[in-house]
Amino acid sequence: MTDIPVAPAVRPLHFPAALDRLLRPATVALVGASANPRSLGGRTLANLAGFPGRLYLVNPHQSDINGQPCHPDIASLPEPIDCVVLAIPAEGVEQVVHQCARAGAGAVVVLASGYSETGTEKGTAAQARLVVLAAEAGMRVVGPNCVGVANQVAGLHAAFAEFPRSGRVQGCRIGLVSQSGALALAMSQSAEHGVSFSQVLTCGNSCDVDVADYVAFLAEEPQCDAIALAFEGLADLRRLQQALALATGNGKRVALCKVGTSEAGRAAIRYHTATEPGDPALLDALRGVPGVVVVERIEALVETAAFLAKAPAAVRANGVAVLSGSGGTAILAVDAAARAGVPTPQPGTETTQRLVAALPAFASARNPCDATAQATRNPESVLACAEALLADPAYGALVLPWGRSQTPTLLPQLGALGVRHGKPVCVVWMSQLLETAATTETERDPTLALFRSLDHCFGALAAWSQMVST
Amino acid sequence: MTDIPVAPAVRPLHFPAALDRLLRPATVALVGASANPRSLGGRTLANLAGFPGRLYLVNPHQSDINGQPCHPDIASLPEPIDCVVLAIPAEGVEQVVHQCARAGAGAVVVLASGYSETGTEKGTAAQARLVVLAAEAGMRVVGPNCVGVANQVAGLHAAFAEFPRSGRVQGCRIGLVSQSGALALAMSQSAEHGVSFSQVLTCGNSCDVDVADYVAFLAEEPQCDAIALAFEGLADLRRLQQALALATGNGKRVALCKVGTSEAGRAAIRYHTATEPGDPALLDALRGVPGVVVVERIEALVETAAFLAKAPAAVRANGVAVLSGSGGTAILAVDAAARAGVPTPQPGTETTQRLVAALPAFASARNPCDATAQATRNPESVLACAEALLADPAYGALVLPWGRSQTPTLLPQLGALGVRHGKPVCVVWMSQLLETAATTETERDPTLALFRSLDHCFGALAAWSQMVST
Repeated sequence: MTDIPVAPAVRPLHFPAALDRLLRPATVALVGASANPRSLGGRTLANLAGFPGRLYLVNPHQSDINGQPCHPDIASLPEPIDCVVLAIPAEGVEQVVHQCARAGAGAVVVLASGYSETGTEKGTAAQARLVVLAAEAGMRVVGPNCVGVANQVAGLHAAFAEFPRSGRVQGCRIGLVSQSGALALAMSQSAEHGVSFSQVLTCGNSCDVDVADYVAFLAEEPQCDAIALAFEGLADLRRLQQALALATGNGKRVALCKVGTSEAGRAAIRYHTATEPGDPALLDALRGVPGVVVVERIEALVETAAFLAKAPAAVRANGVAVLSGSGGTAILAVDAAARAGVPTPQPGTETTQRLVAALPAFASARNPCDATAQATRNPESVLACAEALLADPAYGALVLPWGRSQTPTLLPQLGALGVRHGKPVCVVWMSQLLETAATTETERDPTLALFRSLDHCFGALAAWSQMVST
Repeated sequence: MTDIPVAPAVRPLHFPAALDRLLRPATVALVGASANPRSLGGRTLANLAGFPGRLYLVNPHQSDINGQPCHPDIASLPEPIDCVVLAIPAEGVEQVVHQCARAGAGAVVVLASGYSETGTEKGTAAQARLVVLAAEAGMRVVGPNCVGVANQVAGLHAAFAEFPRSGRVQGCRIGLVSQSGALALAMSQSAEHGVSFSQVLTCGNSCDVDVADYVAFLAEEPQCDAIALAFEGLADLRRLQQALALATGNGKRVALCKVGTSEAGRAAIRYHTATEPGDPALLDALRGVPGVVVVERIEALVETAAFLAKAPAAVRANGVAVLSGSGGTAILAVDAAARAGVPTPQPGTETTQRLVAALPAFASARNPCDATAQATRNPESVLACAEALLADPAYGALVLPWGRSQTPTLLPQLGALGVRHGKPVCVVWMSQLLETAATTETERDPTLALFRSLDHCFGALAAWSQMVST
């Protein structure tokens, strides 16, 4: 193995329009299309089904695949192609990329592995040649060593992995950007529990298009409400900062997670996507950027982005009120708030009086408000407590540790109360590992944010509060 | 509200046999039995169905309930009762407890709220009288303000909440002890995904029986393999230490989580179970106790206990190897290891040669070992890598970030490899929120530990490694 050269010289951001042909294509070609549903080409073909534009199949060894005509090469296609997906081994890629450049393609997506991530001179040189080719032709290259891209807004699923199709929930749609395809797949599976993704965009070795370019694209995508970003390479901090500024300037908040923060992790990046891991200190430059939340744990990324998509523009107060049907979870909630530096002050006199009036004697008319299991079976009591706490100027948000034994139908009413007061209502699901119809409905409800961890919830609230107040 | 007095004077541990009549009863009486399935008495009655001993129903206003005879009071029962469950409001409790004491009952479980947690003199005095009664009669009192207890080993489910019945998986059974009943309910719901609980024991205000007594009981319970403990009150550290020493002395490891570590949380305890929260420094005395792991986040408690139940007695090495089908999760894994202070050294020369031989050129024959998605579809390649890493003396455990797209049938084979080397194999499920047949099977497999968070996994490994090596 040889040393891997650092990332190419600093270049300008591919400004949103530059990715239009890649991500909003009118024409797509699949090179290496196959009738074998288990092969790379067959899996990618299956995922491309339903593309609303013109899809061309390319395979010199086939005349048709499942009744669709097959073309021998890119040159023989009847029109220039916006987005060419290369589902072929690395050996054949360079020749096809040449053809694409000559035929005026807009972008190529290179799925094959065997480039810089191998640590070999051969692989590194092959990747470098792709970069030169793309630059000379003004053509974008995605990958190599990547899973592909999906843009639900454009009906495009140009990837060999099947990202789950999610519901299109207005106001809650997340643009998911991940250098690692497998990580994108793992995170996007939360779509099956109600998370709405507008795009899932991966870039692997990122020889040309990288996560910063994707963020810039999403900055101008009206159907993307917030961005979840996971990346390994951090060679060019300035470009990423520019992209984040574009996104937040357009009102899109960003949750991001740096993969490879430890020494061992940074070393491993060289063998995965061979991108420049960046100095850990660079990450600090992204903390405190208004509209951007840095999360440490990957498990918190999608939940935080979903919260950011739903949270109001203004923070009314830094304090947070906790309302629970269980004293134990109420206490754990204020413990988590303290860890995150979120104040949980006591209610004002008027609020206390309203809580006392709404609760049985053995409940806690304070913060955290333990309404007890008995009261949570009485919807009027819970709604009266929530109204009292949301009306209190000491509180900027309401957190509800909730579970399967609590009444799910109450949640939308509690969300509506939050909207009326301009304060976010966060549900933390305490029933371990049990997704239910209630969690899915809550996820889809633009007035409610859903977390499965108290620390994720208060971490997001702390960041939101700081983000807006700075 | 008045100030709540601190916990009663230091007393000896109720040594295991003292809880026998409560938790392994031959006779149970339910006072307040009701035909209304939504009432406290009706719900408790439904949960007591299937009790293999003699169950007596007590309700002065009924002659029978669903065909079962109903007795007017405790005095009229034909034999002394081991465990009396009081599903009646606080007002009637004291009189019945008197009757129980006179009739030679072994223990009473008081579900009613309205005691010290109200912060009133009346409630506090009523609870103090229960303590005196119990002590004078040599009768145990559970509660008040509690959900009850379930001992699956004895077929006893003396609780108003329905704790899920779990499979009885040898070598994996967790005794769950939680002062808060709602928290016990939330945690025990993981039974639906394969976690096996031998007991679920709650004690609410803990006026007599407390979590330390439960831990001492479980210390001598052959069917409990590990203990998960969540508690608020920490008045008598010495008693808890004694109980933990009994448990670990009998080979049962304990994962524990203190509820109410923050100032706000400690204040809230007084309104929940009104137990003495204890000095935060007391908790430090429990860290580093061999066999005991202190977890900060409640979400990690059951996973950590399940791991402790399955992990080998000896640690072969402090280093941990990571084997993944995704470079991104592999990097995140070593990041999490670094956060937890777990070393992830590089493999020895022989191991590297074996990895190179088993993997494609673009995979990473190192630690973390990114076998790539391609190789994880080749079971022989994955097994060869796992065997090489487990055989390396640098590693004491193998961590597998895994997901729905990886072959689930491989996991039991990987677990068997770990057993052969005397090293734990930990599966970290990266497919967000998606429990599948594979997760349930893994949970039930005594040779595999399952986590849904990289931090939970490496936190547990770090604690296990320290616990055994100290």
